[in-house]
Amino acid sequence: MSYKVAIRSFKTLSYLGSYKKIRDRPIRYYCAAVLGAGYVAYKEFKRNKAEMKELIYLKNYMAEPITPLHQLQKNQDDMKTQMELLIMRIQAEFCRALEKEEDEEAKFKVDRWTRKEGGGGITCVLQDGRVFEKAGVNISVVSGRLPPPAVQQMKSRGKNFESKELPFFAAGVSAVIHPRNPMVPTIHFNYRYFEVKDKNEVHWWFGGGTDLTPYYLNEEDAVHFHLTLKHACDTHDPSYYDRFKKWCDDYFTITHRGERRGVGGIFFDDVDSPDQDSAFSFVTSCAEAVIPSYIPLVKKHKDDAYGYHERQWQLLRRGRYVEFNLIYDRGTKFGLHTPEARYESILMSLPLNAKWEYMHEPLPNSAEEKLMKVLKEPRDWLNIEKPKSTAA
Amino acid sequence: MSYKVAIRSFKTLSYLGSYKKIRDRPIRYYCAAVLGAGYVAYKEFKRNKAEMKELIYLKNYMAEPITPLHQLQKNQDDMKTQMELLIMRIQAEFCRALEKEEDEEAKFKVDRWTRKEGGGGITCVLQDGRVFEKAGVNISVVSGRLPPPAVQQMKSRGKNFESKELPFFAAGVSAVIHPRNPMVPTIHFNYRYFEVKDKNEVHWWFGGGTDLTPYYLNEEDAVHFHLTLKHACDTHDPSYYDRFKKWCDDYFTITHRGERRGVGGIFFDDVDSPDQDSAFSFVTSCAEAVIPSYIPLVKKHKDDAYGYHERQWQLLRRGRYVEFNLIYDRGTKFGLHTPEARYESILMSLPLNAKWEYMHEPLPNSAEEKLMKVLKEPRDWLNIEKPKSTAA
Repeated sequence: MSYKVAIRSFKTLSYLGSYKKIRDRPIRYYCAAVLGAGYVAYKEFKRNKAEMKELIYLKNYMAEPITPLHQLQKNQDDMKTQMELLIMRIQAEFCRALEKEEDEEAKFKVDRWTRKEGGGGITCVLQDGRVFEKAGVNISVVSGRLPPPAVQQMKSRGKNFESKELPFFAAGVSAVIHPRNPMVPTIHFNYRYFEVKDKNEVHWWFGGGTDLTPYYLNEEDAVHFHLTLKHACDTHDPSYYDRFKKWCDDYFTITHRGERRGVGGIFFDDVDSPDQDSAFSFVTSCAEAVIPSYIPLVKKHKDDAYGYHERQWQLLRRGRYVEFNLIYDRGTKFGLHTPEARYESILMSLPLNAKWEYMHEPLPNSAEEKLMKVLKEPRDWLNIEKPKSTAA
Repeated sequence: MSYKVAIRSFKTLSYLGSYKKIRDRPIRYYCAAVLGAGYVAYKEFKRNKAEMKELIYLKNYMAEPITPLHQLQKNQDDMKTQMELLIMRIQAEFCRALEKEEDEEAKFKVDRWTRKEGGGGITCVLQDGRVFEKAGVNISVVSGRLPPPAVQQMKSRGKNFESKELPFFAAGVSAVIHPRNPMVPTIHFNYRYFEVKDKNEVHWWFGGGTDLTPYYLNEEDAVHFHLTLKHACDTHDPSYYDRFKKWCDDYFTITHRGERRGVGGIFFDDVDSPDQDSAFSFVTSCAEAVIPSYIPLVKKHKDDAYGYHERQWQLLRRGRYVEFNLIYDRGTKFGLHTPEARYESILMSLPLNAKWEYMHEPLPNSAEEKLMKVLKEPRDWLNIEKPKSTAA
């Protein structure tokens, strides 16, 4: 603000400097005024740049925020700002944590993009690394008007809006990590904040989840993963983990095959209680649980032995991942229905390689069949479901 | 019929033979009756078997028809029967033609399957051959009641039905051939006949099409392909090729990428004029044009030289094929929405291998870019579009 004031006073002084009456005044007044204004402007410029530097470099964000810095600073109490800062931090922390597991030269490629209608995103992709075959971590902060198909997509989720086209704001982080070693599971997470204006009333809610897709079942890993998520949930509401674990199993179902895509995790939508700050704090805990839930599994298995057979099975399961994402995933559908969708960011979740074999069946009693059993019937990993009461 | 009569008389005679009164009659009467009945039964059995043999072996069908033979024989004038016999023949002829291009040991695996609700299909797949990486040729003859989502799927195609659940019959042949050599294009075709009963009124129509998906553009091939299809159309209605070529370009669009999946061909739906026999005859011509439109291209290119670069590009384009089939294709959606869908037959269209690279762009002026230009702007391969009138 004071930067603009200084610029304005400098302009006024320059103008006045050329005005006859003022010209008669001693030149030193004029010079002093110009120098003063210049100094103020320079100081302000340095301070702003330093702040930007702090934000981007010290906090290690992947790129400059989508919303202009001065706007973020002005609206620090607004949930839109808080969410944008959270997803920027989560993206950066997760990318750095993944890079640490990789070879020196494998780094995330960062694409910052903007949408004509409003907002944009930062897409980070690491492709063809030694540890990660394809890792995508994306944030987007978009606003505009929702077209009828996207509104419809929301309605089928239980939301009912009166308007046909709705002004909306959405900010979210989403990632899919496909490791190269079939013994390391794939992880997906997504945390998002929505605001929709219908007939001058603002509706807001959070959604999200984290889920794990192993190629070979390691029960210890599944328990560790679920336990980390449960801890994140329990601080906020003791009923959350149970409900959101079940929701996850239901959501990530490849309906036509009657199987889940993985061993689940948590999934929720339409979280708008008990209040905005508490809901945000819950989402923050979940997003912060991603690294401790997953990175230990990468460290543990990234150098495990495997061969052609295991790779082929991994590629077949990746085909199933593609089926889920393109046929059933609401996020993908919602994304591709949004006007000017950046499809490369939406489809970055697809694996580098996938395979479809007609009528593939795992051998009886094989490790592959062991996984299939869990995908057909989700397990209660933490043994917390109430035991069924037996007849006396 | 007479087979059953013979069996019954044999049974009766055996019973009578043990009956006291008859026992007194000379044994030769009894023996003669038994032998006579046996002879009639044997003759009938041989005749039936020979007929079946003629149908299956002489006509070279891939498996026994879905509809019982005696029923097909009884209803020879019914369009359902005519369509089932057509798709059986087309399937067999196409499979044999493909096998001729393959190594000796690469043969189609034949799966005949039935649905609880009614009907079934014959799925033929040749996988991992030297010439064909994955070739699927499927026929299905199904009936039952259409559930609301499938009815909805039809409604969005312009059909409006009053009932929520509709008794239906559908018979069709569909094939997708993914060759190994990137210089050989992928072909897809599908010809189908529908009957739907709404409020006691039977609605019928034909649909179908044939389209080509090259990985490297060979203009001569595209012209040959389109010309063969045009010939098949022209005998029936001189306006068909133009209309159905445009429909094909519009239908096989990967909307989010703003590109077609290939160089098109023909596509039509809801063909129910001028009358049932003429419409069937048109569909027959189209289905018979598949071999002459495609097999010459296989012969021409199956031994072309190619390397790692061309294979990678082919895999990326196969990823786009998967995107179209899982996100946009109405046939796939309709199939997966049908109760007890045989998903392995529906998804047999997916390639053995596919690839997704983030932000892949072909090099300027490369052969890959040449293909992309045609996918972004479909061409009039036969130069038959009317020239735009220029202002005087």
